[in-house]
Amino acid sequence: MMARPAAGVRSKTLIITLPGSPKGAKENLLAVLKLLPHACLQAAGGNSRTLHAGGVEKLEKEAGLDSAAKSQHHHHDHGHSHGHHGHTVPKAHTNPGDSLISNDPRAGPTQRYRESPYPMLSVEEAVKLVIDYTPAPTPVQVPVNGSLVGHVLAEDVQAKEAVPAYRASIVDGYALNLHDIVEEGGIKKDPRKFLVASVSHASPSEAPAVQSGEVARITTGAPLPPSAVAVVMVEDTTITKASPDGQEEQEIEILTNDIKPCENVREIGSDIKAGETILRKGEQITAVGGELGLLASIGKPHVSVYKKPIIGVLSTGDEIIKHNRPGPLRPGEVRDCNRPTILAAVESWGFETTDLGIAADTPGALEETLRAAMRRVDFVITTGGVSMGELDLLKPTVERALGGTIHFGRVAMKPGKPTTFATVPFKRTEGGARETRLIFSLPGNPASAVTTLHLFVLPSLQLTSGLPRAEVGLPKVLVILNEELKCDARRVEFHRARVSMGKDGRLHAVSTGGQRSSRVGSFRGSNCLVRLPARKEVVGRGDEVEGYMMGVIGGL
Amino acid sequence: MMARPAAGVRSKTLIITLPGSPKGAKENLLAVLKLLPHACLQAAGGNSRTLHAGGVEKLEKEAGLDSAAKSQHHHHDHGHSHGHHGHTVPKAHTNPGDSLISNDPRAGPTQRYRESPYPMLSVEEAVKLVIDYTPAPTPVQVPVNGSLVGHVLAEDVQAKEAVPAYRASIVDGYALNLHDIVEEGGIKKDPRKFLVASVSHASPSEAPAVQSGEVARITTGAPLPPSAVAVVMVEDTTITKASPDGQEEQEIEILTNDIKPCENVREIGSDIKAGETILRKGEQITAVGGELGLLASIGKPHVSVYKKPIIGVLSTGDEIIKHNRPGPLRPGEVRDCNRPTILAAVESWGFETTDLGIAADTPGALEETLRAAMRRVDFVITTGGVSMGELDLLKPTVERALGGTIHFGRVAMKPGKPTTFATVPFKRTEGGARETRLIFSLPGNPASAVTTLHLFVLPSLQLTSGLPRAEVGLPKVLVILNEELKCDARRVEFHRARVSMGKDGRLHAVSTGGQRSSRVGSFRGSNCLVRLPARKEVVGRGDEVEGYMMGVIGGL
Repeated sequence: MMARPAAGVRSKTLIITLPGSPKGAKENLLAVLKLLPHACLQAAGGNSRTLHAGGVEKLEKEAGLDSAAKSQHHHHDHGHSHGHHGHTVPKAHTNPGDSLISNDPRAGPTQRYRESPYPMLSVEEAVKLVIDYTPAPTPVQVPVNGSLVGHVLAEDVQAKEAVPAYRASIVDGYALNLHDIVEEGGIKKDPRKFLVASVSHASPSEAPAVQSGEVARITTGAPLPPSAVAVVMVEDTTITKASPDGQEEQEIEILTNDIKPCENVREIGSDIKAGETILRKGEQITAVGGELGLLASIGKPHVSVYKKPIIGVLSTGDEIIKHNRPGPLRPGEVRDCNRPTILAAVESWGFETTDLGIAADTPGALEETLRAAMRRVDFVITTGGVSMGELDLLKPTVERALGGTIHFGRVAMKPGKPTTFATVPFKRTEGGARETRLIFSLPGNPASAVTTLHLFVLPSLQLTSGLPRAEVGLPKVLVILNEELKCDARRVEFHRARVSMGKDGRLHAVSTGGQRSSRVGSFRGSNCLVRLPARKEVVGRGDEVEGYMMGVIGGL
Repeated sequence: MMARPAAGVRSKTLIITLPGSPKGAKENLLAVLKLLPHACLQAAGGNSRTLHAGGVEKLEKEAGLDSAAKSQHHHHDHGHSHGHHGHTVPKAHTNPGDSLISNDPRAGPTQRYRESPYPMLSVEEAVKLVIDYTPAPTPVQVPVNGSLVGHVLAEDVQAKEAVPAYRASIVDGYALNLHDIVEEGGIKKDPRKFLVASVSHASPSEAPAVQSGEVARITTGAPLPPSAVAVVMVEDTTITKASPDGQEEQEIEILTNDIKPCENVREIGSDIKAGETILRKGEQITAVGGELGLLASIGKPHVSVYKKPIIGVLSTGDEIIKHNRPGPLRPGEVRDCNRPTILAAVESWGFETTDLGIAADTPGALEETLRAAMRRVDFVITTGGVSMGELDLLKPTVERALGGTIHFGRVAMKPGKPTTFATVPFKRTEGGARETRLIFSLPGNPASAVTTLHLFVLPSLQLTSGLPRAEVGLPKVLVILNEELKCDARRVEFHRARVSMGKDGRLHAVSTGGQRSSRVGSFRGSNCLVRLPARKEVVGRGDEVEGYMMGVIGGL
């Protein structure tokens, strides 16, 4: 009951926003007045699990309210002027959009909304709300190894060691003394024959100095002997005298006349200087390897990165069965393709997941499941139960049973209109720290679920993992449509397509066919959501539109 | 010794290719003659582990050859005309490229090549060899779940069930009888009031038929009651009469006049028809979700996909230490950044890996490590030890100790010139099936290792996992250079860059800076290898070049 007029809680302050009209403001205020003491307790940091132990019903009774009874009582009043008593809400109306109706799932259809009470937001508005309510990232120290991939750095990283740490040969060959090389390049001696005096391997060792007139045999990566300044490649030499046993070279001739000081030598710190900042806070460790390679090459044992959230995935609905339940379907049964699909996608983004199973369509079951889930995971993704039907319990459960706030419940998009996003206050233990759990309740239709997963959930997961705001979300590209596509007159459409590079250097999009929201096949082979504007006209073949890359681009 | 003139083994036939010149052909033939009986035994399927038990030394002795002794003997002959005895190879020459020299790692520098004996192949030639020698994919049955992601289908998949399996409402609303709807759309009755006779939930149930003049309340996804033909959305209705207890609606009025038969109804099989081929052999199960969703939605419990190989990653070199070994570096020590980087990249491609550690620079240690690795993994990726130095044991170990074939040992590219690719025959048990192990020996310099990993190893892993030939490798794109880049006159360069979408709809590349092959930092933030042609001129700012996408494209 508090959820609608309460705009939110900041620190310990409860913020209530009332309508602009005097009548509306009065009605709304009266409606929440009796619950204000309870709300203030909660805002002040009271344990919501204890406070809510008896459920909303108990709270409303304590406050002198009884939603089911009152709404029943008022049902017969519809059309009459609305009272100004503290107990006049929820009200039943057959004229939708006029005032508040109960979302108590126990109330009959006469008390339910006949039109969604949630304002229809644009995709941009909805994404902004998701971003605004995503918890700030938390740093954590982790060892430097492959499991770093996908993490974002929470610190600037300085090199404690130089790379290379010693002057190293970059070829197999012979190290030369400075006095045997002329400044302009070339070898002073003629004939250019040198005594092979020692060997320097690419392994820990202390080699003797190379004297003028001598060379030291050296392998790739080996430390230069003292007083050596350049290396001539083995390919540029011949052996002119072998040792008596024929195994070792005693003397070589250098065939080139073009050797300069420092040639074929990697100087200390020439790849990474000691003290240099090699990586910055906010950079992501990619699987390509550069960032991980940098951390490994300077011997950093641990690094501060942002914690990644754990994501639970739940399907809802009595009609939903496990996708692999043996035997034929009974009437009304639907196999659950959302859960395996979403789990796999979220894992491919590099997050740990928890399979929360299927929740039945009873308010108690859903509440139980969500409460248990919030103890195990940071984000809950649900599918189904967000339409207008009497069994669409997600929104009422979040608002009434969990004390959560629904930030949006409708988005002007196709597919994905009933997409719902909520935050729920949570304490792990009595008196524990106030935490927030995010609940993304995606539509049950598979194409809607996958589309909204990519558009709304991904940026939130990335942001809470430390990726800078400007970098979250699917990469936006401009693509050329290879066929004419029909638009929806009222809603922006995210048309599933396959995008690949064309010979003209442009990205080209081909539709994956039938786009009905129930048709998961529209994601077959799809790597891009092409954004079609809301308008009556088609988008023509050859026209440029925006796309959002979900997968790997098709090559030329 | 057989490795050079022997072009390969097909079935049980040993194929030997000799040089075109009569002198060369004779010399080569004489060189292998004594080993032919042994080679034939092996080609005929003899157990190579038993045959090779004594090592190459024993084989050469049995055949009347002694490479170290002979080459020593012949060393002093250089410059003289070469003999035509069966024991004249290996020979020592100070004039490189003239003839064969021993690659026995025990032979001294006087017997080693002074120039790589491996022909320099183009990148395309090298990739073709990798493709040609990659083992064909093997089908395997696996359960349908998230671990399917990245697998390629080994069968066409037919739907055994229709989706949906029953006529379902796509909205929350009221189901109508055919007789109450006119053909051209609209409701016949006026006023359009209907008795609410029953309820159909989206759960397994058998609902009573809807009579003319009545409606059945129905939720999204629920089966249509018998004789219902269309559904009117709840938003398009109002309640005109409630039940005596005020909880249920008894009568509704339909506010719209535009309802057609089948409206808001998903027909049986309208998403997937029973018997329809929903996925084809060769299609990859992506993490985006369409393919996995299709398999789950039709209840397929298992599916035939191609087995993915297991990849072992080994670093070589006495100078290499674990990246996280505590304490400062001793002279000549280098931290191993290749192994963690390669392991992470290969895992991100969806393959299982095995960390094979670091092998010391002794022939025995490397051979032992590789033999043990081949029992555990299908592919071995090594880094280091492929240059020309006396400690570069990889090639001799593969050819001499493991009886493998080096298909290429040099590629005209920058970085990555010494990249080496070999196949090694392998039997898991005595008398077991002949298998092949692939060894990719990448250069030790980190930027070279990561570049060649992406260009040579990835396509092979994908191909043996069943991806069609045309689809393997990094996606090729055309990019616009945002800065002038210098080319190498002799070698194609794979310049590390960051590619993102520009406002002009083109992909734009920015260099990651210093490109020295030892500088792993050149991969920091890089998602693309930009291919610069081998030429003296620069590639200008604004010019178009080819690129190979390693990572996610940067968004607009």
